[in-house]
Amino acid sequence: MSLETLLLHHEVDQLNAAYVAALDEKRFEDWPEFFVADGLYTVQARENFDRGLPLALMALESKGMMKDRVYGITQTIYHAPYYMRHVVSPARVTDHQGSVIRAQVNYAVFRTRPGGVSEVYNVGRYIDELVRVDGRLKFQARLCVYDSEMVLNSLIYPV
Amino acid sequence: MSLETLLLHHEVDQLNAAYVAALDEKRFEDWPEFFVADGLYTVQARENFDRGLPLALMALESKGMMKDRVYGITQTIYHAPYYMRHVVSPARVTDHQGSVIRAQVNYAVFRTRPGGVSEVYNVGRYIDELVRVDGRLKFQARLCVYDSEMVLNSLIYPV
Amino acid sequence: MSLETLLLHHEVDQLNAAYVAALDEKRFEDWPEFFVADGLYTVQARENFDRGLPLALMALESKGMMKDRVYGITQTIYHAPYYMRHVVSPARVTDHQGSVIRAQVNYAVFRTRPGGVSEVYNVGRYIDELVRVDGRLKFQARLCVYDSEMVLNSLIYPV
Repeated sequence: MSLETLLLHHEVDQLNAAYVAALDEKRFEDWPEFFVADGLYTVQARENFDRGLPLALMALESKGMMKDRVYGITQTIYHAPYYMRHVVSPARVTDHQGSVIRAQVNYAVFRTRPGGVSEVYNVGRYIDELVRVDGRLKFQARLCVYDSEMVLNSLIYPV
Repeated sequence: MSLETLLLHHEVDQLNAAYVAALDEKRFEDWPEFFVADGLYTVQARENFDRGLPLALMALESKGMMKDRVYGITQTIYHAPYYMRHVVSPARVTDHQGSVIRAQVNYAVFRTRPGGVSEVYNVGRYIDELVRVDGRLKFQARLCVYDSEMVLNSLIYPV
Repeated sequence: MSLETLLLHHEVDQLNAAYVAALDEKRFEDWPEFFVADGLYTVQARENFDRGLPLALMALESKGMMKDRVYGITQTIYHAPYYMRHVVSPARVTDHQGSVIRAQVNYAVFRTRPGGVSEVYNVGRYIDELVRVDGRLKFQARLCVYDSEMVLNSLIYPV
C-alpha cells in the first residue's frame, strides 16, 4: 500500500461524497458535470446485471442525455417531491493500472416524502469507471446496480 | 491533494466515528466533551434549514446545556428506551483555510426498540465547524439537518 | 497521527469493503478466507453482549466451521433467497500497539427478497481482532453485535 494508492482512494471517496451531496441537496444541474462528455449513467436491477441482461431502468449515454433528464425532473415530469439521502461506504478501487480507474462502492438511498418517515429507497452498488480530466476524476461510466427490485413508486431522480 | 489534507480528512472521519460510538454505546456523558465550552448543537428539520427559518427541534448553546440534556435523558425524562446505530459516510471537508474547519457528512440513524425490528429513525447531514483544542479537533458547532420530518415518537437522545 | 496509522486505517477500511463485497455478491466460499485458521466468527445480540452473557446467534470457532456453514447455506439449508447489502462507516482502530490490531465499525445490512422492497435487516457493530498474515490483515475474531433483536425471519447468511 503506497501513499499514491492511498491518495487515489481518498480522491474516489471525495468524489462520491461530492456526487451524493449534489443529488441530496437537489443541485441537479451539477450532476452531469461529474461525467465526461460521452459518459454513461446506468441504473440497473441486480437481477438483470447478474444475468448479463441489458434491460435497465435508466440508461443515459452522454452528458447531453443527462442534462435532458435534469430538465425533465426539474421542469416537465409531474411527480410527488421527495428528499434523497445517500450513505456510502469507503470505496474499493479495483483497478488503477491503466488510464481508466475502476472502483466500486455500496450505497443506501433513503427517501423522505413531505411529512413522512424516512424509508429505505434504493440500496446497491456503484460500479465505476473513472478518468482524469484536467487533474480531476470524472465518471466515464457509473453503473448503479440496485437490489431493490420493487421500486417505491418510481425512480425520478438519479441515484 | 496533499498529505496534510489527507490527514485532516482522516481526523474528521475518526472524530465522527468516535462521536457516534459514544452515542450508540449510550456513553452520553462523553458526548459534550466533543464540543468546545461554548459549542453549539442544533437539530433542525431540512424544511426549516432550506428556508433559513430558525425553528429547531433541539438547540443547545453551550457544553453546560448539553450536560443538562444528558442529565435529562439519563435521569429525568420518562421515555421508552431504544438503541441507536449511526452509519456515516466518509466526510467532506468544505473549508480548511482558516482556524475554523468546515466539514459535512451524511448520516443515517437506525433505531431499535426492545424486542423490535430496526427502523430508519433519522437521516440527514451533519454540518460542522471544527476547531483544534490542545491538538484535538472539537466541534464549535454541529448542526444536524434531518430529512425525516415525521420523527418516530420523539427524539430523546442527541443524534 | 502518523502516516503509518493512516495506512493502517485505510487497510482496515479496505478489508471491510472486500469482506462485505464478498458477502453481498454471494461469493460465500471467499468468506472464510478473511479469517485465520482458528479464527472466531460470532453474531451476538447487543442485549447479551452488554450483559456479558455468552448466548450468541452464531458462534463459529474455526475456518473449518465457517466452511461448513457455507456448505449449509449454499447446499443444504432450505430457505427463501434474499440479497444482502452492507453499508459500513470508516473504521475506528482502537488498538494497534501489539501484534493484534483491534478495530470497530458500525454496519447496516439491508435485505431484499425477490420482488420486494429493501428492508433494514440487521444493524450493529463489528468488533474485530486482526492479525497480519503474509503481509495481509486477517480476522482473528470478528464479533458482530447487532441491535436488531427481532431478526426478520432468520439469519441465514453471515453478516
